[in-house]
Amino acid sequence: MNFEGFTKRDPDKLKVPKVGIGMLGYGFMGKTHTNAFKKISYLSWSWPPPAIPELVAICGRNKDNVEEAALKFGYEGYYTDWHEAVKDPRIEIFDNCSCDDTHYEPSIAALKEGKHVICEKPLAMTVEDAKDMYLTAKESGVKHMTAHHYRFMPAVRLAKEILDKNYLGDIYEFKCRYLQPYGADPTEPIENVWYATGTKSGVMLGIGSHVIDMARFLAGEISTVFGIQKVFNKTRPNKAGKKEIVEADESNVAIVEFESGAVGTIESSCINVGRKNQLVWEIYGTKGSMLWDLEDLNNLHVNLSDAPVKGLSGFTKINVTDFDHPFADMLWPPGHIMGWECGHVNELLHFVDAVVNDKPIEPYGATFYDGYIIQLIMDAIGQSSNSGKKIKINAEV
Amino acid sequence: MNFEGFTKRDPDKLKVPKVGIGMLGYGFMGKTHTNAFKKISYLSWSWPPPAIPELVAICGRNKDNVEEAALKFGYEGYYTDWHEAVKDPRIEIFDNCSCDDTHYEPSIAALKEGKHVICEKPLAMTVEDAKDMYLTAKESGVKHMTAHHYRFMPAVRLAKEILDKNYLGDIYEFKCRYLQPYGADPTEPIENVWYATGTKSGVMLGIGSHVIDMARFLAGEISTVFGIQKVFNKTRPNKAGKKEIVEADESNVAIVEFESGAVGTIESSCINVGRKNQLVWEIYGTKGSMLWDLEDLNNLHVNLSDAPVKGLSGFTKINVTDFDHPFADMLWPPGHIMGWECGHVNELLHFVDAVVNDKPIEPYGATFYDGYIIQLIMDAIGQSSNSGKKIKINAEV
Amino acid sequence: MNFEGFTKRDPDKLKVPKVGIGMLGYGFMGKTHTNAFKKISYLSWSWPPPAIPELVAICGRNKDNVEEAALKFGYEGYYTDWHEAVKDPRIEIFDNCSCDDTHYEPSIAALKEGKHVICEKPLAMTVEDAKDMYLTAKESGVKHMTAHHYRFMPAVRLAKEILDKNYLGDIYEFKCRYLQPYGADPTEPIENVWYATGTKSGVMLGIGSHVIDMARFLAGEISTVFGIQKVFNKTRPNKAGKKEIVEADESNVAIVEFESGAVGTIESSCINVGRKNQLVWEIYGTKGSMLWDLEDLNNLHVNLSDAPVKGLSGFTKINVTDFDHPFADMLWPPGHIMGWECGHVNELLHFVDAVVNDKPIEPYGATFYDGYIIQLIMDAIGQSSNSGKKIKINAEV
Amino acid sequence: MNFEGFTKRDPDKLKVPKVGIGMLGYGFMGKTHTNAFKKISYLSWSWPPPAIPELVAICGRNKDNVEEAALKFGYEGYYTDWHEAVKDPRIEIFDNCSCDDTHYEPSIAALKEGKHVICEKPLAMTVEDAKDMYLTAKESGVKHMTAHHYRFMPAVRLAKEILDKNYLGDIYEFKCRYLQPYGADPTEPIENVWYATGTKSGVMLGIGSHVIDMARFLAGEISTVFGIQKVFNKTRPNKAGKKEIVEADESNVAIVEFESGAVGTIESSCINVGRKNQLVWEIYGTKGSMLWDLEDLNNLHVNLSDAPVKGLSGFTKINVTDFDHPFADMLWPPGHIMGWECGHVNELLHFVDAVVNDKPIEPYGATFYDGYIIQLIMDAIGQSSNSGKKIKINAEV
Repeated sequence: MNFEGFTKRDPDKLKVPKVGIGMLGYGFMGKTHTNAFKKISYLSWSWPPPAIPELVAICGRNKDNVEEAALKFGYEGYYTDWHEAVKDPRIEIFDNCSCDDTHYEPSIAALKEGKHVICEKPLAMTVEDAKDMYLTAKESGVKHMTAHHYRFMPAVRLAKEILDKNYLGDIYEFKCRYLQPYGADPTEPIENVWYATGTKSGVMLGIGSHVIDMARFLAGEISTVFGIQKVFNKTRPNKAGKKEIVEADESNVAIVEFESGAVGTIESSCINVGRKNQLVWEIYGTKGSMLWDLEDLNNLHVNLSDAPVKGLSGFTKINVTDFDHPFADMLWPPGHIMGWECGHVNELLHFVDAVVNDKPIEPYGATFYDGYIIQLIMDAIGQSSNSGKKIKINAEV
Repeated sequence: MNFEGFTKRDPDKLKVPKVGIGMLGYGFMGKTHTNAFKKISYLSWSWPPPAIPELVAICGRNKDNVEEAALKFGYEGYYTDWHEAVKDPRIEIFDNCSCDDTHYEPSIAALKEGKHVICEKPLAMTVEDAKDMYLTAKESGVKHMTAHHYRFMPAVRLAKEILDKNYLGDIYEFKCRYLQPYGADPTEPIENVWYATGTKSGVMLGIGSHVIDMARFLAGEISTVFGIQKVFNKTRPNKAGKKEIVEADESNVAIVEFESGAVGTIESSCINVGRKNQLVWEIYGTKGSMLWDLEDLNNLHVNLSDAPVKGLSGFTKINVTDFDHPFADMLWPPGHIMGWECGHVNELLHFVDAVVNDKPIEPYGATFYDGYIIQLIMDAIGQSSNSGKKIKINAEV
Repeated sequence: MNFEGFTKRDPDKLKVPKVGIGMLGYGFMGKTHTNAFKKISYLSWSWPPPAIPELVAICGRNKDNVEEAALKFGYEGYYTDWHEAVKDPRIEIFDNCSCDDTHYEPSIAALKEGKHVICEKPLAMTVEDAKDMYLTAKESGVKHMTAHHYRFMPAVRLAKEILDKNYLGDIYEFKCRYLQPYGADPTEPIENVWYATGTKSGVMLGIGSHVIDMARFLAGEISTVFGIQKVFNKTRPNKAGKKEIVEADESNVAIVEFESGAVGTIESSCINVGRKNQLVWEIYGTKGSMLWDLEDLNNLHVNLSDAPVKGLSGFTKINVTDFDHPFADMLWPPGHIMGWECGHVNELLHFVDAVVNDKPIEPYGATFYDGYIIQLIMDAIGQSSNSGKKIKINAEV
Repeated sequence: MNFEGFTKRDPDKLKVPKVGIGMLGYGFMGKTHTNAFKKISYLSWSWPPPAIPELVAICGRNKDNVEEAALKFGYEGYYTDWHEAVKDPRIEIFDNCSCDDTHYEPSIAALKEGKHVICEKPLAMTVEDAKDMYLTAKESGVKHMTAHHYRFMPAVRLAKEILDKNYLGDIYEFKCRYLQPYGADPTEPIENVWYATGTKSGVMLGIGSHVIDMARFLAGEISTVFGIQKVFNKTRPNKAGKKEIVEADESNVAIVEFESGAVGTIESSCINVGRKNQLVWEIYGTKGSMLWDLEDLNNLHVNLSDAPVKGLSGFTKINVTDFDHPFADMLWPPGHIMGWECGHVNELLHFVDAVVNDKPIEPYGATFYDGYIIQLIMDAIGQSSNSGKKIKINAEV
């Protein structure tokens, strides 16, 4: 059928590489990463991006759900068994957005098939698994990434650049916390409390891993930890009204020493009324300080002690949406603020670029090495809480 | 080619209506609306949405650019002449995202072809054109919408619901402003100053229209205005260094009276250093007050004078991203804040729903009637500025 | 009686001039000014101040109350008739903190006795009285001051210095408001609503005068005004439950033009839930902008468009309590924030210094001339509200 | 000499008890406490206060300085030897505002003379001294107070009342920090760095003591601590340019467990650019949370999880200056914010009232017992930092 004046687009005119995506999981993270892959394809002002992601297949155990997901998100098709999915030759990037306890096996399998793998955090459930994942990835020679997407927020990237330029001088202190409210009410049914429902999950794995990633990204390697892990509500009713035992940690407070000599406070809790999603960090150096809050993610607060005009020093609230800010190509115009999802878009763009153009993931992205070290630190905090002693971090790779 | 275990998705299984989209314009707004149509298709938690938008055609004068836009955004094809596009029978919704001075003709043509039309603001360049557009739309019996998307921000919708429930009592005062920084520097070349570059544009048409829409949406119909329109920088260099005359208004301050007896302050300016995109309104009633700021769009500040506990009154900062908040189905989880684009997504979802299910655009959406009345008020502010007198608003439809 | 090691202080060792104070009024303002005179005597780090105020006499109509006030505040004695007080030769400074409608007569009488006079705002109830007060003061050759103490907040003084150094360039816009909540509830008894209880008072005289003072202090002389004055609640119950007519204005919104070409928004209202004492101004220039809020009076927000480091521009929150800030000598150490009363302390110190050392009141202090011009502008806003027309300001002195 | 109409005030008409004050120290704290005693005498709206403080004598080693202080502050006379001052029978309250290392001896001496004693924090330099001071005070039967004045900020008192009413439910977490900037610059001469200049002082004693006081006041008794104490800048130039060794701690981070089972984070540092005087605490309970910041001391942020209206929950910013707020009698009208000094005024009013009317210091005031326990906890943090182990708190009285 013809329409007067209508010209069909000709995909062959699109001289942009494509990269095949295989997605494991269609829940919150599956949706978030799929949204990111889609936006990569059209969001940039200097289009085209390094490659256009092709949504090859989505994978999940429940056939009806995964079929709906394929229709909803626009994947060409689906798998109900990840063992098969990882072998699909069209898939170049395997994106593991499944539950924490299925990060290990499918990622290992995909790595062994030579796929580039991005895996949601925490990388694994144990230090051993995480280490194994890192070593497998290293050996396979592919690109590997742990999805610590907060590194890719424009304001966090700007902070990183400020640190790299040494505007803050030597770092004294780093304070970071991730607080959520979900378990504050002891009568909240266990099914509504995300960290208490997985087999071996908990707040540390779920959000504490982000805190540690921010610490290492911004303040460097951690050498010692000590801390307290708490389960305040040791039981909780389920929706049927029965009491269930909660083993997952609800709150973590830890003090860390960095290799640089700086000191850090590292907190993650899910019993904090009014803290909907408060990932906040502060960093104090000899020449200045900075602060960022995920609930107000577009703004970076910076205080350089040598104020440009005498008497006018203080924290400057920088709305990081300007033409000269990081990720400007992926931002709306200044002041048209970005939502939480933007970190994922920028992260997956980084991964796609690294895969297609053989660029390094580091230093801006977190690799499986980072995922392993984070796991080591989380484990050490648990040990410290049990023993009441300071623990030294020993990476063995 | 077969892949072990892979099932191709079957679009026939998708029992959701489709609605054909024709887009005019591929600039900032064309990108924004296209992004919204795409997100409608997969973002909701209770998927499917009322209809899946099909990106039929995009239209623009420059062949190379519009072809690239079709490839970039995924439209099936493109037109270089809107006269032809409006006749395409596959197009059910005609979305006019072109320049202000091409809002009138193509929209009228599309209406006459029986298309449902959504048009960016300002509806037209003159009161007469806007009136004509409204009357044509009314006569054609289709759905028509002026794209005042800020009505569809979750926090603004929550505010509207609070007002509708009369939690604030009778309204005394409404204060609203939209401030941007682009013209603050008198040496900024005219090409970088959006409001000064269109033939007859200006700050009032460009962003003042949103202020007036917020006023009418939240505080009701306006009966009188008086105000001052200013061009502070009557000339401005162009990039070649030549002086050019600027006729477009840079700043507007107006006082309005509402039919209810309330008083309003209505401001829009583009000479405000540090105000990147500051659309702020405050509303004061006999029983409470509210405040919202576009640069912090996820939060609504509410102060009800009968505090729940004696002594604990004040402004409550509500992060409008909870499960029980407006547009919850289109939000990320609580505290995972939404970006500026979310208003467009919710707005176009509203329009699609209205079109497919024959639902009314009002009271939540702005129609061409609203676009016309806003034009009338903008015009009256200009008259007042010229005459130094208060002007009565007279709608003639 | 002797105490081992105790040395009585010898006031003769104090080589500091004294200045005799006569106070009219012992209400809120009498207390505030008395507190300020007392603090002048000991607060400075570089003590002594230019003079030590001696609290000679306090004056009020009710003998019991004024006697208690003398005991409470430490005045040597009291008068019940101001006609006698103004003749007391020990009194050098006459401080008129009485009700608005007794600003005129006692101030005129004190001026004619050659006293230096500071008078609370509004200077008078009418333009004529204010003009007369100014001319009498001018003729008498004494120091005269209208108590616009917000000029003496450290942050406001810093703002003035920033403007004087032209850091903001030419001023485009000045926006200022003073909002309070007292009349928001229409059922609030008239006795609890300060602006409705004086014979001819109202919001404009009571707090609008401060707004206009801030405008002239920071943005220069005003040439035209237009605005709306409102009495939303035309009746109000008294405590006995009877309906009383309210004539006093509750809300004022005005647009002004400055002689410089800048435009201003000038608002004062007392029907604003949650605005406990919100005096806020913003000032926008070609090179920067500033903001200050009385409810957060220690902080000045400054945005200079030429940021010291590319990409790091934004509003800097300056806590104006540093060693190099205005009035540093009267501040606690940095970050030990000052209360609302500090403006009065600094203002009266300025007045005492001007009196003792024959220094000018201007440009930092407001004189009776300023009081007169403010009265003229307030009156013009009323005229504009009645006529619906823009009014030109004509000072006739 | 007679003045027509003038009546001298008759102090005999003042039927208010007097209480004699002896002050040790005329530095920052001597000035602050003297200011507070003066304000007690006239600030209250329901005057008179329980007693009028009489400034009997001020005491200091340097004759010239203490003489000037007596003249400046209005003390009747002065002592240069505290051994004599503590014997002055006119002195009922002995106020120890001297340096940290002269808290012990003069306070003990005054107690033994039967004086009521208020002593600045830290109570002593060692646990042993603090314990001795407490036991001596207890034995003497007088009123004794450690000057933890932040308990007497209106917002902190309101928080305490909210906790006492159990609005927050059981407490999970308490987070508190006191950050200052003075040592951030490693080149800052040692003379400008208050915590490094005293013989054995440091950040923990200087401001950490306040943090621990807030913790115990709001969240209850502490049972274990572990933490890290740091001297980042182990040497520092003096003004003559010579390198000096710094032994005083610059930064403390500790985790504490409360007897209730709650967990706390306790921080104090003086190397934080931009934190002028940031004492912040947050408290999280099963039913709500609260936050307070000394740099914004008039506001308390409260979030009760059972919002009065569904969907309207969040942190409410309460400006604690209302007629129904704590210390209302000593506040200016609503929104006329209080300065840092107000805590001292309220604290000394509390002490005077306790002395004159034999009322208990607790639970609102901190006694020498509290001072002792705080010293014990500070000491334990040091032990933990040295040993890398969690330390149990054992009070032995």
